[in-house]
Amino acid sequence: MRTLEWRQDHVVLIDQTRLPQETVWLEVADVDAMIDAIRRLAVRGAPAIGVAGAFAVALAALRAEREGRDVDFVRAEADRIANARPTAVNLAWAVERVVAVAHDGAAAVVAAAQALADDDIVTNRALAQRGADLVVDLVGVPVRVHTHCNAGGLACVEWGTALGIVRALNERGALTSVTADETRPLLQGSRLTAFELADQGIAHQIVADGAGPSVIARGLTDVVIVGADRIAANGDVANKIGTYPLALAAARVGMPFIVAAPESTLDPVTPDGDAIEIEERDPDEVLSVAGRRMAPHESTALNLAFDVTPADLVTAIVTERRVIRPAEGERL
Amino acid sequence: MRTLEWRQDHVVLIDQTRLPQETVWLEVADVDAMIDAIRRLAVRGAPAIGVAGAFAVALAALRAEREGRDVDFVRAEADRIANARPTAVNLAWAVERVVAVAHDGAAAVVAAAQALADDDIVTNRALAQRGADLVVDLVGVPVRVHTHCNAGGLACVEWGTALGIVRALNERGALTSVTADETRPLLQGSRLTAFELADQGIAHQIVADGAGPSVIARGLTDVVIVGADRIAANGDVANKIGTYPLALAAARVGMPFIVAAPESTLDPVTPDGDAIEIEERDPDEVLSVAGRRMAPHESTALNLAFDVTPADLVTAIVTERRVIRPAEGERL
Repeated sequence: MRTLEWRQDHVVLIDQTRLPQETVWLEVADVDAMIDAIRRLAVRGAPAIGVAGAFAVALAALRAEREGRDVDFVRAEADRIANARPTAVNLAWAVERVVAVAHDGAAAVVAAAQALADDDIVTNRALAQRGADLVVDLVGVPVRVHTHCNAGGLACVEWGTALGIVRALNERGALTSVTADETRPLLQGSRLTAFELADQGIAHQIVADGAGPSVIARGLTDVVIVGADRIAANGDVANKIGTYPLALAAARVGMPFIVAAPESTLDPVTPDGDAIEIEERDPDEVLSVAGRRMAPHESTALNLAFDVTPADLVTAIVTERRVIRPAEGERL
Repeated sequence: MRTLEWRQDHVVLIDQTRLPQETVWLEVADVDAMIDAIRRLAVRGAPAIGVAGAFAVALAALRAEREGRDVDFVRAEADRIANARPTAVNLAWAVERVVAVAHDGAAAVVAAAQALADDDIVTNRALAQRGADLVVDLVGVPVRVHTHCNAGGLACVEWGTALGIVRALNERGALTSVTADETRPLLQGSRLTAFELADQGIAHQIVADGAGPSVIARGLTDVVIVGADRIAANGDVANKIGTYPLALAAARVGMPFIVAAPESTLDPVTPDGDAIEIEERDPDEVLSVAGRRMAPHESTALNLAFDVTPADLVTAIVTERRVIRPAEGERL
């Protein structure tokens, strides 16, 4: 099942804010609607928002053709799309790739965006097999995997990165179970990762984010596998807030900490984690829970959406093409 | 304001499950009701459940007197009370202290329990001043404090341990602000710590638990101060789940990690953290949020209520009597 798809002149995507309670498909027919969907996390996950951004440029190109506007209009719209969220480099990367063919007309942009979506699936499958090989090599079989947030099919077009490796391990009969951090504030773990694992019949347990490091310390898991939103030249990894504590806990017990990401998440232009812009989101995501205000009205919140795991804690980065070992000093 | 208090023949305590939305006082007149209040966290925090346990023994002693039962009845009830929750050593410690005078009659037990409650306040104030001295000594002024869960007046009878130090710093004009982890699953940080800080007019921000280590890594705080539920002979500290990641993050940047606890939380009989029983609570606390099921119905959860921070990560333990430095190899 593709989680977002081009249909003739619009995009269809699953509304990730409603899962797992409701499966609602959104039809997105213009750039503003796509920017809104990206900002409110109806579509989320670095590879998925890359593809969504590319599709949004296609929508802009179709509108330019319809309204007789020139390529500068498409480029201006592309800039708006690329800035919808700051941290995931895939968004800017994908937008840049498809806007490059804007001078060839809307059909070329649509084709480029569709190719990018197709590539994502192929990329994920290659990455997943390479990652499964690495995991078996590092920790043997059967494997208990710990993951954070959602780096599954929902975060991509299909299949997934970190959960792609989980799926590949499961297909090989090499997987025991998965521990998924719930991932506050928006619960991508307990809502989305659990939804995908349940859908695939994979045994799993959810833990509060604060419990993740204890699961590692108590030897209840064998390997940590997470996705990424941007990886700097030195191997520092920006990923969903709450990833860094798992890396600290894994390093303390010598457990492998593996980052699964396509090459498009690598950002050799950014020297290190300090140079990565970390999105701060609405404090109300933290102050309220399931729509109910929990904190006193005087309280404020700092809602950092991502954290940076320093390269020395990253055992391996697995892409569709290679394995990079930042903890051993290897750079992109 | 005392958060739990003896009134003639029963106990009055604030229902911590309803804060900060509602301030509801419970009248607890028998042992079963107190065990229920302890188990569902209407009263919580190691020192507070110690006092609550002592009061429950007083309720048992009054009943024994009323119904003409002997001291063995009181002792059997005391055993039930001491086992209401396993991790906080203060509960068993306090029950043992008051049951020791059961042969002197109910009035003696009531008096012992009341003395224990009074002691808690005196203890907290002494601990708070010693802790504030230590913090100023270690990091200078003004100070930004990071805390987890609630170790305030609500966790004790009045004043608090970790938040007692915060309060003492604030009274000295040495406090800038507090960062409080929300503390899933039961949100003692965003509900209770924020409530106390707001009540005292102390500037604070709430963060998701996964963000705590990033707040430390980014230099947005100067010191971590937390409470404890049980401290083993070697200095390993059991405290609310999510404490350990802060200790890992603090150690990485050389930030002091301070545990504030009365002597009654020290358990020299337990050799180390591995020997501490960690309570597992209802998975539904994790799977549901504010009463709404978030995870798929196929999902399960592991709900570890506490974690263990190894002694080498604990800069100092502050009690009402002394400062112990486990990271330097000092034992209880």
